[in-house]
Amino acid sequence: MSEAPEAVRWGGDAVEYVDQRLLPHEPRVCRASSVEQLEEAIRTLAVRGAPCIGVFGAYGVALLRQRHADDAEFAAAAARVRNARPTAVNLAWAVDRVLAASDMLAEAHAIHDEQRAMDERIAQAGAQLIPANANILTHCNTGPIATAGGGTALGVIIAAQRAGKRPHVFVDETRPLLQGARLTYYELAQAGVDATLLVDAAAAITMQRKQIDLVIVGADRIARNGDTANKVGTYGLAIAAAHHRIPFYVAAPRSTFDLSLRGGEDIPIEERPAEEVASFGGVRVAQEGAHAYNPAFDVTPGHLITAFITEYGVLRPPYAESLAELELRPNLTLPV
Amino acid sequence: MSEAPEAVRWGGDAVEYVDQRLLPHEPRVCRASSVEQLEEAIRTLAVRGAPCIGVFGAYGVALLRQRHADDAEFAAAAARVRNARPTAVNLAWAVDRVLAASDMLAEAHAIHDEQRAMDERIAQAGAQLIPANANILTHCNTGPIATAGGGTALGVIIAAQRAGKRPHVFVDETRPLLQGARLTYYELAQAGVDATLLVDAAAAITMQRKQIDLVIVGADRIARNGDTANKVGTYGLAIAAAHHRIPFYVAAPRSTFDLSLRGGEDIPIEERPAEEVASFGGVRVAQEGAHAYNPAFDVTPGHLITAFITEYGVLRPPYAESLAELELRPNLTLPV
Repeated sequence: MSEAPEAVRWGGDAVEYVDQRLLPHEPRVCRASSVEQLEEAIRTLAVRGAPCIGVFGAYGVALLRQRHADDAEFAAAAARVRNARPTAVNLAWAVDRVLAASDMLAEAHAIHDEQRAMDERIAQAGAQLIPANANILTHCNTGPIATAGGGTALGVIIAAQRAGKRPHVFVDETRPLLQGARLTYYELAQAGVDATLLVDAAAAITMQRKQIDLVIVGADRIARNGDTANKVGTYGLAIAAAHHRIPFYVAAPRSTFDLSLRGGEDIPIEERPAEEVASFGGVRVAQEGAHAYNPAFDVTPGHLITAFITEYGVLRPPYAESLAELELRPNLTLPV
Repeated sequence: MSEAPEAVRWGGDAVEYVDQRLLPHEPRVCRASSVEQLEEAIRTLAVRGAPCIGVFGAYGVALLRQRHADDAEFAAAAARVRNARPTAVNLAWAVDRVLAASDMLAEAHAIHDEQRAMDERIAQAGAQLIPANANILTHCNTGPIATAGGGTALGVIIAAQRAGKRPHVFVDETRPLLQGARLTYYELAQAGVDATLLVDAAAAITMQRKQIDLVIVGADRIARNGDTANKVGTYGLAIAAAHHRIPFYVAAPRSTFDLSLRGGEDIPIEERPAEEVASFGGVRVAQEGAHAYNPAFDVTPGHLITAFITEYGVLRPPYAESLAELELRPNLTLPV
């Protein structure tokens, strides 16, 4: 069991990162030392996971400040990094925060440290919910590689392992992009956690026959009533967990709660290309021209969620109250 | 729209079959003319679908009788075909029926003819349950290619289409072997039925957002209380359908009902190699040596099933009564 390389790291004269496209087969650490290389790493998804991109962008801007003495040149370069991906809010936020600082490298380190500290608080809050020798089911990837910290749902599991609880994790492969099979299984193996891979459709029989003690997943966006957008498949898992009376936990930082949204119906669902469904790992499966419905996310109603695990502790129903309280808490990374 | 080749056919000095692993890209007709080739075709799922395997095994034994003059040699060869897959009852039954016949080839042809007639009766019984313009969700493959006749669940849908009802079918891709993406979508396209492909994990959001009127699937084995073994993923679909109050139908012939079994706990579940989950089409997904839980089937409790569609009509709860009545009916293919 070798220690996994850090997803992102300051390398003195470069930003070092693991090229996530090569995982799990080759944990290659690459170095980005120019604006072109920084932009390319983000744009090609070599670096992915919204918090991870934020940390990468923060170090990137600090690096560019060292490279470009000319202010206009530097500003143009930083803008290229900031705009390398348009949707992830973390990237623009982290870049802006570093740009506003007097010591840019120190600010980038601070962002990274805060990410680690927040993930650690989530992990500690969640680990208390994990019984010894628990059988756990999870979906998609929520590990260190996605956050450049300790991870959210996977961080909870790894903290339970470090506390000697020896969890066994059943990992949904997570079609269509297979983040579970490629990344989650790899990260659990690196952390020495026993893991078993399964196809998403086997989750219900796994709950029925493998003494699953709990399900834990991450989240992309959570409304004030607890409705939770997460990787497609989460909703079906939550229905099956309720059917088997298995606790269903969502681990997410304060910044994932969008308390301006009253419910899940206000969360837009991104639909991605049919091609992701019609092929598998680059191999064509369905016939040419096949139509597909490919929502990237689904919305799990709050009433199917046992509790939320946050850096402010474990929030339980009624969410109208517990999530309203969260609104009063400062956001440890992104500004409210 | 070209006519699809028949799934299985007597070829004079071989059993001809469509290699289902190559669909939808290439409808290649292969010939099995030795016990090794027969066994291999079943074991590797080149021929799949319980009734189709039954017809294939029936012709196979008739072929082996021609090949092996020595009785002991013939018996050993027939046993190898009979045991090539453990879960589907059709294979062992068809082999035994042919073995007991004086004219083995005529008996194999009779089994095939009966299969076609039975599928047609199921299709007609089921088509009455399909509203005009219905949105239908299905899983795995239950079409002509799976039965060597007209199909079961897919036969119902195709009959509804022929009756002018214009159904729209949402097709689960059905990991790990992707029978939905490869075969069901292909067969629906061949039959001119509108279809949309989705990953299995998107079934719950599809039920929630796409006005699904009913779910219809096939079955591998049904106990006397209605508990139904079918392709892994069926159980999770049934739970989600109940959650959304969507009717959940199982289309299957009398022969799939194993009325000697009191409940689903007596149905053995075949576990298949981890490799099917860890890779696809030669593309490795998970890391080398990854553990996987790969049950081929799961068991859906009878209480989650709205009705069974059989060649004797539609059977509704309480199944203790309606399935007991079925016991009195002659088995059009398999003996009681």
